[in-house]
Amino acid sequence: MRRSIVNDPDDLVAEALEGLVLTHPTLLELNAEHRYVTRKQKARDKVGLVSGGGAGHEPLHSGFVGTGMLDVAVSGAVFASPTALQVLAATKAADAGRGVVQIVKNYTGDVLNFRIAGEISGDDAIDTEIVLVDDDLASDTGEDDGPGRRGTAATVIVEKICGAAAEEGRSLKEVAEIGRRVAARSRSLSLALAAGTHPGDDEPQFTLEADEVEFGVGIHGERAKERVPFTSADDLTEQLVDPLVKELELDRGDDVLAIVNGLGSAYPLELSVVARALHHRLADGGIHLSRSLVGSYVTSLDMHGVSLTLMPLDDETSRLWDALVRTPALTW
Amino acid sequence: MRRSIVNDPDDLVAEALEGLVLTHPTLLELNAEHRYVTRKQKARDKVGLVSGGGAGHEPLHSGFVGTGMLDVAVSGAVFASPTALQVLAATKAADAGRGVVQIVKNYTGDVLNFRIAGEISGDDAIDTEIVLVDDDLASDTGEDDGPGRRGTAATVIVEKICGAAAEEGRSLKEVAEIGRRVAARSRSLSLALAAGTHPGDDEPQFTLEADEVEFGVGIHGERAKERVPFTSADDLTEQLVDPLVKELELDRGDDVLAIVNGLGSAYPLELSVVARALHHRLADGGIHLSRSLVGSYVTSLDMHGVSLTLMPLDDETSRLWDALVRTPALTW
Repeated sequence: MRRSIVNDPDDLVAEALEGLVLTHPTLLELNAEHRYVTRKQKARDKVGLVSGGGAGHEPLHSGFVGTGMLDVAVSGAVFASPTALQVLAATKAADAGRGVVQIVKNYTGDVLNFRIAGEISGDDAIDTEIVLVDDDLASDTGEDDGPGRRGTAATVIVEKICGAAAEEGRSLKEVAEIGRRVAARSRSLSLALAAGTHPGDDEPQFTLEADEVEFGVGIHGERAKERVPFTSADDLTEQLVDPLVKELELDRGDDVLAIVNGLGSAYPLELSVVARALHHRLADGGIHLSRSLVGSYVTSLDMHGVSLTLMPLDDETSRLWDALVRTPALTW
Repeated sequence: MRRSIVNDPDDLVAEALEGLVLTHPTLLELNAEHRYVTRKQKARDKVGLVSGGGAGHEPLHSGFVGTGMLDVAVSGAVFASPTALQVLAATKAADAGRGVVQIVKNYTGDVLNFRIAGEISGDDAIDTEIVLVDDDLASDTGEDDGPGRRGTAATVIVEKICGAAAEEGRSLKEVAEIGRRVAARSRSLSLALAAGTHPGDDEPQFTLEADEVEFGVGIHGERAKERVPFTSADDLTEQLVDPLVKELELDRGDDVLAIVNGLGSAYPLELSVVARALHHRLADGGIHLSRSLVGSYVTSLDMHGVSLTLMPLDDETSRLWDALVRTPALTW
């Protein structure tokens, strides 16, 4: 049994957005009608950045609105895409006259609604470019005609690096181009020891035996193709690291960025142990982990699990990653 | 059943500290022998600040080492005080020639070991002052001869404000004095919908019925004196807010700082809903909530619950709270 600290579950997203904006009154502003959050001080003369998707993944996306990252984040209900009308309103709010990059996780509803909104906003002379994030290696079927890989924690990297590029004054095409390059070079893998529970429900989305780990789980509780034996943190981490290293063809001397991401109820001691195992595993292969985030950045309600995201760095992406950022969930 | 992402539970704290320092290589340094974390660039010509206690409450304390906050954080095993020898080594490491303030949560073992360490470090001509944090209203018995109130999330406020005061160059006595003033004016209350589970155990520290909430729970799974009915987030929040407002004698026109703190597996939507309810409840009483932290800062493994901390602000504490800080868990 997992209960939730909520009022009416139907009001959860609206109330949580209000709470976030009340917590950051100098940084954020709420559009309650269309459920999007914008910067309080609208940026001028730069490419706009909008992202969004279903709720339940916080701090993604609303926690990444601010200087150096998103201009606008729009939220659907828990695990449900925002409507095309919401996305349209959010896209218009992100425009400062130089066009808008829409950062979209690869799920059918999100892609459809952002695409429709992009087309309609063209009628108002707003140029848009979609950057699709599809980093989840577990959903890579190798087929060309399927839905493709799901978008997960690499979204944070794309939002950060596009944010810095836009802040530098780059053009719409340039910001979209670096976003696509980052997305193409980022891969993630996730595992869960326990599923999350929908607000208002008593039971989790699925249950596992005591000796099972769901390997390759999605951030909406999508089951994986396989379950692996429950084992030590070091062993589990290696099972996440090794396929990513292989897929990205990482080699001795490469410098990488990692996100060790808690999926909801993994606590800091657990995440730090995974971070340590990751460092050692990469070092064994001569790969240098120069930058990492360790925390719960892209969650799935209270799912107990961890995802690992890797991206090889070069001079340009390192510089853009290091650039100043000031948002509720990421500041340096 | 709650399993943990760990290796040998006996190695958990050492491995997690190593993972934290590997994640922040330019900011932190590890002393593996005595299990403390220091700033990589040791501060000069300022009062030193050391804190610590049992593990399982991360990011407290190691996540608050850095510019504008702690110089050193020392960790015991999960829910167990560091030894006097560990604290002694950590206190010496915090000294830069102007004495050391020890920030200690009010638990018997912690108080004893910090006090012994303080006395022994006097032999090395290191002046120390203890600032005791005892904010947990639920453990206030009104008796003079008991153990007193437990120390919980107000520790973050004390560490931040003492950190800023030390960074300004204030004397040992002055830094201790403002720390004591902040501690004396901070109160917290916690509730839990589910207990945490010790790493390596399968079962939580206690279980509740579906209609029960543990009201006044401690951060080590200490049971409360009472259970209250499970109800809405707004109702639960008011049950936390009202006794704090009364105890602190807050009144119309007062300006306060709050921490809405997740105890482990409360997720961001839940915490934002509590933050919203807090804002509205205080506003109803004419109290202005000008500054707040909303997140999981002082945890109890994966306990599902929330604590609320309030402290009235004045010009001096507002300025010290707002001063620059750069640590793994708090940066602005």
